[in-house]
This record gives sequence, C-alpha cells and structure tokens, in this order.
Amino acid sequence: MDWFKTIQENVDWLSSIGSDPTGGMTRLLYTDSWLEAQNAVKTKLEEIGMTTRFDEIGNLFGRLEGSTYPDETIMSGSHIDTVVNGGNLDGQFGIIAAYLAMGYLKETYGQPLRSLEVISMAEEEGSRFPTVFWGSKNFMNEAKKEDVIDIADFNGIKFVDAMRQCGFDFKAGEQKRREDIKAFVELHIEQGNVLENEGLQIGVVNSIAGQKRYTVILKGQANHAGTTPMGYRKDAVYAFSRICCEGIEKAKKVGDPLVLTFGKVEPKPNTVNVVPGEVLFTIDCRHTDGNLLHGFTGELEERIQEIADEMGMEVSIDLWMDEAPVPMDESIVKVIEEAAKKENMKYRIMHSGAGHDSQIIAPHYPTAMIFVPSIGGISHNPAEATKLEDLVEGVKTMAAALYELAYK
Amino acid sequence: MDWFKTIQENVDWLSSIGSDPTGGMTRLLYTDSWLEAQNAVKTKLEEIGMTTRFDEIGNLFGRLEGSTYPDETIMSGSHIDTVVNGGNLDGQFGIIAAYLAMGYLKETYGQPLRSLEVISMAEEEGSRFPTVFWGSKNFMNEAKKEDVIDIADFNGIKFVDAMRQCGFDFKAGEQKRREDIKAFVELHIEQGNVLENEGLQIGVVNSIAGQKRYTVILKGQANHAGTTPMGYRKDAVYAFSRICCEGIEKAKKVGDPLVLTFGKVEPKPNTVNVVPGEVLFTIDCRHTDGNLLHGFTGELEERIQEIADEMGMEVSIDLWMDEAPVPMDESIVKVIEEAAKKENMKYRIMHSGAGHDSQIIAPHYPTAMIFVPSIGGISHNPAEATKLEDLVEGVKTMAAALYELAYK
Repeated sequence: MDWFKTIQENVDWLSSIGSDPTGGMTRLLYTDSWLEAQNAVKTKLEEIGMTTRFDEIGNLFGRLEGSTYPDETIMSGSHIDTVVNGGNLDGQFGIIAAYLAMGYLKETYGQPLRSLEVISMAEEEGSRFPTVFWGSKNFMNEAKKEDVIDIADFNGIKFVDAMRQCGFDFKAGEQKRREDIKAFVELHIEQGNVLENEGLQIGVVNSIAGQKRYTVILKGQANHAGTTPMGYRKDAVYAFSRICCEGIEKAKKVGDPLVLTFGKVEPKPNTVNVVPGEVLFTIDCRHTDGNLLHGFTGELEERIQEIADEMGMEVSIDLWMDEAPVPMDESIVKVIEEAAKKENMKYRIMHSGAGHDSQIIAPHYPTAMIFVPSIGGISHNPAEATKLEDLVEGVKTMAAALYELAYK
Repeated sequence: MDWFKTIQENVDWLSSIGSDPTGGMTRLLYTDSWLEAQNAVKTKLEEIGMTTRFDEIGNLFGRLEGSTYPDETIMSGSHIDTVVNGGNLDGQFGIIAAYLAMGYLKETYGQPLRSLEVISMAEEEGSRFPTVFWGSKNFMNEAKKEDVIDIADFNGIKFVDAMRQCGFDFKAGEQKRREDIKAFVELHIEQGNVLENEGLQIGVVNSIAGQKRYTVILKGQANHAGTTPMGYRKDAVYAFSRICCEGIEKAKKVGDPLVLTFGKVEPKPNTVNVVPGEVLFTIDCRHTDGNLLHGFTGELEERIQEIADEMGMEVSIDLWMDEAPVPMDESIVKVIEEAAKKENMKYRIMHSGAGHDSQIIAPHYPTAMIFVPSIGGISHNPAEATKLEDLVEGVKTMAAALYELAYK
C-alpha cells in the first residue's frame, strides 16, 4: 500500500465534508455536514468489509468479526465533530487511522483472531451545545438525558430537536456497558509542541492530565493615576502580577508535567490613567498526578489569599472545573511502545495535557493513545497540520499495535 | 459673611446648570448648559460689581479695577466645563472660590490697590472634543486653529459649528499676550487622597508633575494551555507581570512623588485555556522632576526590552504623551503658605499629580495653586466631594492670599 497517497486522499476526502468557507473545518454535532460525514464513513467502513451500525445517539461502529475470539473486541477510533473553524486532523484523523490500519491488516493478514472495531464518536468538542464527550459518554452509558434535555445552540435550536432531525434519539432505559472490549487505542494529534521540539515521530500516551480551572476576582480600589501616591494604592493589576509571577516561577521549579496558565486578565476600569480597582483573571492548572495537582493549587489559593490580605483587597476564588488525572492502561502502553520500536520510530512515553475521549473510556476498558506531532503545536485552527510522513508513521504504529492485540 | 451657607448655595446653584439626570454633572464645551453656566457666572460677577467680558472663544472675565496700580492684575479662576458624568467641584469650584473671595475682599476692604480679575475658562477636560486646555491655551494665545478646525464630537458635530452656535469664533489674527497679570492663583480639589490621609485642610501646590504615557505591545506565542510545557512557552501575560512587578517595586523604592500605573491590560486571545500570545498594556508615569522622570522611564523601557529579549518576544514601545513638569512660582507659593498660616490652616506644600490650567499659565505669569481635600480621593465621578468646612477653609485661604497680592 502507498501509505502516503492513501492517507493524503483519505484526509482530503473526509475534510471536504464540512469544510469551512473561511478555511479549515466546521462540523458541529447533528448538523447536515456532521450527518453526511458519519454516513460517508459508514460507507467507507463497509467498503473495507466491515459490518456497520449506529447506536441510538449517532455513534458509528464498524466491525470485523474475529475468527477465534470473536467476543473479544479490539477497538480504535475518535470523534467526528470539530470546533468552529478548526483544522482537519483533530478527531477525524483518529477515525481514518483506525480504519486504514484495520483495512491494511485484513488485506495483509486476513481475518483477525479477535474482532476489530472502529468507532466514529458523535461528539467530543462541546462546540455547538454546552456539553462535551457526548459520544464517549453515551458509549460508556454515562451520558445523562437531564444534562442536555433543555440546552440549545447559539441559534436557539434545541439539542433534542437537532438530534431527532438527524434520526437519532436518547438511549432507551438502562443499558449494560459492553463487556467484549479488551482494548481501546486512540490516535490523535498532539496539539502541543513537545514531539516537534524533540524531533520525535510518535508519542505513547500513558496518562491524561487532571485539570483545575478557576476564576479569581481581586477587589482593590480605583484611584487617579496622577494624584494617588504609591503608598496609598490598592492596585489590583499589581496584585495580579505578583500572583502570576510567583505562581509561574513556582510551577517552573516544580517542573513537567505541571502547567499553569493565567489565560484571561480583565482589569477594571482598564484605562491608562486610573489605578486598576479590580481585576478578574483565570487559572488553568494541570498535572498527571492528582495529589501533586491538588497540593500545588491549594498552595496557590493560599498565596492568593495572603497577597490579597497583605494588600488590603477582597478576593473571591471560584474553582469551576476539577477533573482528576486519568492513567492509561500499562499493558496497552507497552503494546504501543513495542509497536513503535518494531517500526523503528523515534518515540517517547508522554502524557496528554489536553482532554480526549480516551479519558472517558479508560476507567472501563484497557486504553492508551498514540500521538503524532503537531506542526508548531497549533490546533483548533485552520493552520492545524502534521507532516504527511508523521501521519504515515502514526498509522503504521497503530497497525502494528492492533496486529499485536488482535492477531496474536 | 456666613461662609458655610454662602458656599453651599453657590455650589448648589452652579451645579444645577448641566446637572446629569443619572447623577453628578455633564457640562461639555459649547453645549447649551455650558453657555447657560457661563452667562449665569457673568451675571453673578456683575452682581459683585465686576465689569465682565467674554474673549472671542468664550473665556469669561470679571474685573474689579485697582485704585493705585490698575495695570497690575491679580487673577484667579478655573474651568467651567466638566467630564461626562463628573462631580460638582472639579473646575467650577475654582471659579466660585475666586469670585466669593474677591467679593468678600471688596465688601470688607473696599477697592483693591491692584486690579482683581476672575477667569471662567471655557474648557480644560477634553471631554467633548479631542482637544484639552482650550480655555487656558487661548488665554495664553497658544491655541492653534489647525488643531481643532477638523475635529468633531461623538455625534459628529464639528467643533467650529458648536463654537459658532454659541456665538464665539477663533481669535482673529496675531494677538499679544496680556502683560498686566502679576499673579494667577487657582483653587482646585486635590483629586487624590494625600490631604485626607494626612488630616490636612489645604495643599499649597508648588509643582505640577510631568507625565509620560506609553502603549506597549508584547508578542509571544499563543499555545494550548494543556499541551505546552512551561519551558516551551512564550507567555505574554507572564512577561507583562514581570515588567509590572519589577516596575512598581522599583517605583516604590524611588518614592514620592514618582507614580507608576499599568492601567490597561489586554491579553490575546484572553481565554482560560490558551497561553496568552500577546498583550497590550499602558504605562502612566509621573514625577515633578523632569530628569528623574526621564531617567526612570528610560530604565523601565530598557528593562521591558531586556525581558522581551530574554523571553524571545517582540516588543513595541510607543511613547504617546510626554509632558514636562511645570514648577509653580516660588513667591506666589510663599504668599499662599503665609495665608494658610495666618488662617491657622493645617496645610502642606505638595505637588499636583494631575494636570490643571495652571500648567498652561505658569510658564508666562507667576502662578500657584491651592488644593482642598477630596473625600476618598474620588473625582471625575458623581461621588466627588469635599467636606463643606474644607471648602470654606479653601476660600478663606484664597481670600487671604488675594488680599496679600492685591491690597498691599
């Protein structure tokens, strides 16, 4: 097989469905382009010789029955939806990699011993409706009807109506989680710049970082910038700057994989000649070790309070996201690592700082991920790209891992 | 004279012209309320026995002729315009204080030896049109027709049309600056909290601070907050925070009267889960000593460049305001200080961190200012206020100073 040609063709083909007139892709849950893409993938899977089915909410499955252990399923896939004006790899390349690898294995080695299955998940990004992981959470029977029953998109179209318009509906009653799935392997672009900076081709993901997000409001006192001596000021931007400097310097000392970001800063009144009386800022902090994450953010919260007290300011600290780290399955990590070695890849074991469907699936099925490099670390952007040779190495590594899992 | 009653009545009366329906005052240059206020003050000055006149652009003058040295004029006043939704003291109380003090002196001591003159200046705030000090600059023959000929207000009304609508026009041809003015004394609210914090009643202003204003843009690199290790980041908000902390700590070490404010901070994309790739921020720095101001901001500019270089960022530093400090006249400062002593005031010699008409006038005529305390340092706000007893002490100090200047 000419991997380069095949992969390029498949990416171009699937990217044409939902391509954004302004560049990149916009393929939101339960839109026409979303449905068209799921149906196109369904046809593609059938061409490979898979039996296909949708679940009630619109997750798509394609299956090659195993010869010896048909009730043991080795699964791969990712999500079909994109962010608004996203790139053409995030999500869908994990689906393409899965079916191309399985198609290649079937062609080369015939029927697998264990069943092979692709999943094209309905939704992960949360870009149309205020809900995320709708696909994987339904797959795990963890989605809640009450979380989406009243939500609507930015045009006021109700989630439920959009879903039914596409021919799907809520799962009926209680359902048992499938017990046949023995491994789940998801390929995804890194969306960071570690692999590129280290000159590597493959990341073997052994953990998805936990994350905490905060909104902090510091209230000092707005004053005239000319007439208020430094000693009489309660400058909220200065207080923020102290917190930011101290926090980031400490985070750098703690070292990888801890990351700390003060992404949003909104002073009031935000005017050149007024001492800022108030500032709202956000904190995003992630680590693969839940205890370390908790310890670091706990100390940061204390320091924010101390700095506010010392400067005579009021502070409110709102923790609004608190997700625990999700470790990947050691044995699947090992299988991927061996596959990368066998294919002579330059690889490393690494964590994912971003969230993925795998974090929903990993608590229930042995799961691990394969990363391919992102050029410049860019993602969620039409400029999102990976060198074609790196996409090829990703699919080859996936094929080698699935061979190990399904053919031995 | 019952100073308390008289002052309260005069403030209430003049504040009723242009009172803002949302609270406070809005009296913008060449609006109906502005013209009404100037005409009302004109009538008031005539009631005191002054001869009045407008100059071509709308500055109002009221004059009590001196008996012995009529060609030596002692002048006091301030500006009649306000900011949008401002308070009822900034500007107009300097006019009220001038005519009340002069009226009291005339009533008590008769005709002055030197002429006494009130000026109610047309404009200082720059709140309707993009021009400031229109009143004092015309008084000094420094206003330039070409600076205003094409400007318009936020409703598109041209400056020239608004001016002519009120019956005023540009000064015709070259005019000589008056040579009879031997002293100018302006009373103003402090707009800061130094007097209040020190429990004082009067500030004798010996200098108006110079100021420099900058807009700085730092360009780092926007990255995913989860997938970009700390070592690979070019975090523009962190760079800003370093500059802010270092700058303010250094400013505090230098000490009063240096003030340094980072009033506006605008990161991009300003989102919780993206490492900020860019930040725009402003710097406002003031000092009464031009060399010290220049030295401090020069070092700050260097440090901004160094921090940007060290962090691999691009930086642009735009100095868009650079006003030199204006010293007040030592002999007039002395006269006001002696007046404050004579009236048993708790006073201090101080500088002004804010700009005033006096800075335009001081280079040409012996000038100094009297400050009265601002409650909470609040100004340019409907909550702008000064205790009535402090207003009384201000007018008494003004009267004592004018007595010294015009009756001896």
